[in-house]
Amino acid sequence: MHVLGIAGSLREHSYNRGLIRAAAELAPEGIAVEPFDLRELPLYNADLEASRLPGPVERLKAAIASTDALLLATPEYNYGVPGLLKNAIDWASRPPASSPLRYKPVAITGTSAGRFGTRLAQSALRQNLTFTRAHTLPYPELLIPYASSVFDERGDLHDESTRKHLVELLVALERWATTVGRGGIQ
Amino acid sequence: MHVLGIAGSLREHSYNRGLIRAAAELAPEGIAVEPFDLRELPLYNADLEASRLPGPVERLKAAIASTDALLLATPEYNYGVPGLLKNAIDWASRPPASSPLRYKPVAITGTSAGRFGTRLAQSALRQNLTFTRAHTLPYPELLIPYASSVFDERGDLHDESTRKHLVELLVALERWATTVGRGGIQ
Amino acid sequence: MHVLGIAGSLREHSYNRGLIRAAAELAPEGIAVEPFDLRELPLYNADLEASRLPGPVERLKAAIASTDALLLATPEYNYGVPGLLKNAIDWASRPPASSPLRYKPVAITGTSAGRFGTRLAQSALRQNLTFTRAHTLPYPELLIPYASSVFDERGDLHDESTRKHLVELLVALERWATTVGRGGIQ
Amino acid sequence: MHVLGIAGSLREHSYNRGLIRAAAELAPEGIAVEPFDLRELPLYNADLEASRLPGPVERLKAAIASTDALLLATPEYNYGVPGLLKNAIDWASRPPASSPLRYKPVAITGTSAGRFGTRLAQSALRQNLTFTRAHTLPYPELLIPYASSVFDERGDLHDESTRKHLVELLVALERWATTVGRGGIQ
Repeated sequence: MHVLGIAGSLREHSYNRGLIRAAAELAPEGIAVEPFDLRELPLYNADLEASRLPGPVERLKAAIASTDALLLATPEYNYGVPGLLKNAIDWASRPPASSPLRYKPVAITGTSAGRFGTRLAQSALRQNLTFTRAHTLPYPELLIPYASSVFDERGDLHDESTRKHLVELLVALERWATTVGRGGIQ
Repeated sequence: MHVLGIAGSLREHSYNRGLIRAAAELAPEGIAVEPFDLRELPLYNADLEASRLPGPVERLKAAIASTDALLLATPEYNYGVPGLLKNAIDWASRPPASSPLRYKPVAITGTSAGRFGTRLAQSALRQNLTFTRAHTLPYPELLIPYASSVFDERGDLHDESTRKHLVELLVALERWATTVGRGGIQ
Repeated sequence: MHVLGIAGSLREHSYNRGLIRAAAELAPEGIAVEPFDLRELPLYNADLEASRLPGPVERLKAAIASTDALLLATPEYNYGVPGLLKNAIDWASRPPASSPLRYKPVAITGTSAGRFGTRLAQSALRQNLTFTRAHTLPYPELLIPYASSVFDERGDLHDESTRKHLVELLVALERWATTVGRGGIQ
Repeated sequence: MHVLGIAGSLREHSYNRGLIRAAAELAPEGIAVEPFDLRELPLYNADLEASRLPGPVERLKAAIASTDALLLATPEYNYGVPGLLKNAIDWASRPPASSPLRYKPVAITGTSAGRFGTRLAQSALRQNLTFTRAHTLPYPELLIPYASSVFDERGDLHDESTRKHLVELLVALERWATTVGRGGIQ
């Protein structure tokens, strides 16, 4: 299973980028996690979309289309999903009927400095994905609070318990992808 | 009262941009609505923020700081606020303690092609603004469904009933701004 | 497939009760929908739960445990799920590890008088069910606005298009139940 | 200022009931908090409402009508507001135009055993109250996680820091009630 990993942050030492790196490092045999960077993506613009899709958008859509599953690691900004991650979903979701997100297995995770561990952001993201008809992994939910106590200052995940939970999430995603894929649910 | 009007769309003939234009045109005496365009805003990046704030971000924050109130016109993408509008809020909300959004009176509106008229986007936006400690106008709520029947193809609002509701929203915002301002609620 | 149908209303001529009746009437061969009435359920009380489970709660939990899937028809009260329907979910969800809702396939629908057709209630209900680890059917979503134009005053569904959508929902639920059941996703 | 305090729990030693008791005990001079118990309230039923309002509902509506402000202490069940608290809001919100909740200042708080401290329940409750046109205190938000470390087993609040935050919430509610009352915002 090939998993495209997307963090909702552009900060170099971001904990959520570190979470995607940790997933790539820890992925068990048979699962490969490849990070995708949102840095080059323009703001969504329907006029641009109608004339000529920008290169970074084409690359995002192609990367989602060709992967088996997505892993999204979201910070929480203002009780919600960061605009830059939502912007990527907005581009990828268009047009709905041929969106690469449609029927795509997706796992959500996220980490934040405080005790809530992206509780509201993950709920909002789940609602966003419902519209796209992505197949969001229902559980486990992996919320990682107190990021500075489980990641180091470069954003590398050193906490053993969290590393174990992350592996469990990947295993659950693989099983989920197999199940909904086998059902041919569309 | 000076109102900064922000539409969550970059499309030239966007209905939500038309909604802000209509607010500027219809504003009763004593209220001036000035549109602000999100086109130049980069994606939020905490490293950029820490080194040197990009010009468009500085202009957004200064425009919010110097206005009496905000009027936000949001489309609904994927059951939520467009990433590009959320991205603007993310920039403006930082750092929380000195954000120009703090204690700022804000009215929410929005229009969409379908019958839901941005129901979920407006609820999500209200939740986002709760974090910022903006003073969101509690009501009336102005959701405008079936946009193509009340706007023309250039995005100009011609429906008399909707124009009347938009004026009522501005009047309610002015009263709200006076009330929470007078209370010095912080 | 046996489906337990629960309406979030106690009103005799309730549109949502009519929706469950219509599902029972229209269910295609191989699917049987049986209504369950929430009338007798007490308010959730952990002391009661710890001492002796009230009879109606036992019956609700047994009915969910023995059915193949659930069909929930929710009104929208105060931008959310009616308290009486949430109360039933609260009882049935306890204790989490042995709740009959766990891994249960569930379809959500709902109807309301206005144009929003329970948009916010259905989103809230989906969030509630995420906690229970029920397997909520991701789509289609069936929101029925303008109830008085598709139901008669006794709550009987006469609109042909809506009846067709309801059948499609049941067929999708059956396929979903088979898929997630076959995956043994837990 | 008279404040009606409502806890979303019927458990005798409930932490949220303890929170309301603590508010009554700690209320500074000029503020009196009186608990209201939801125990006797029937499930909402529009037929009952249309024929003869049950006594407990009449008492709830009268108590809200005659108080200056509400203090709601909500547990979190299934990522949402407990059905029994939502049921009380459903009764009190009817009919919308003459509901005693309309224009009523309301403060939200809540406590839970885990680390999230009713994050999702409080957000859902805020959304519910938006419909009612209650004037929900925008901040501070008081979420109390790890209830068993700040309350004793009888539900009495002994943590000094939390007691201080509760007093601050009451003071903020009083200021808010004065502000929105003075504005005559309706």
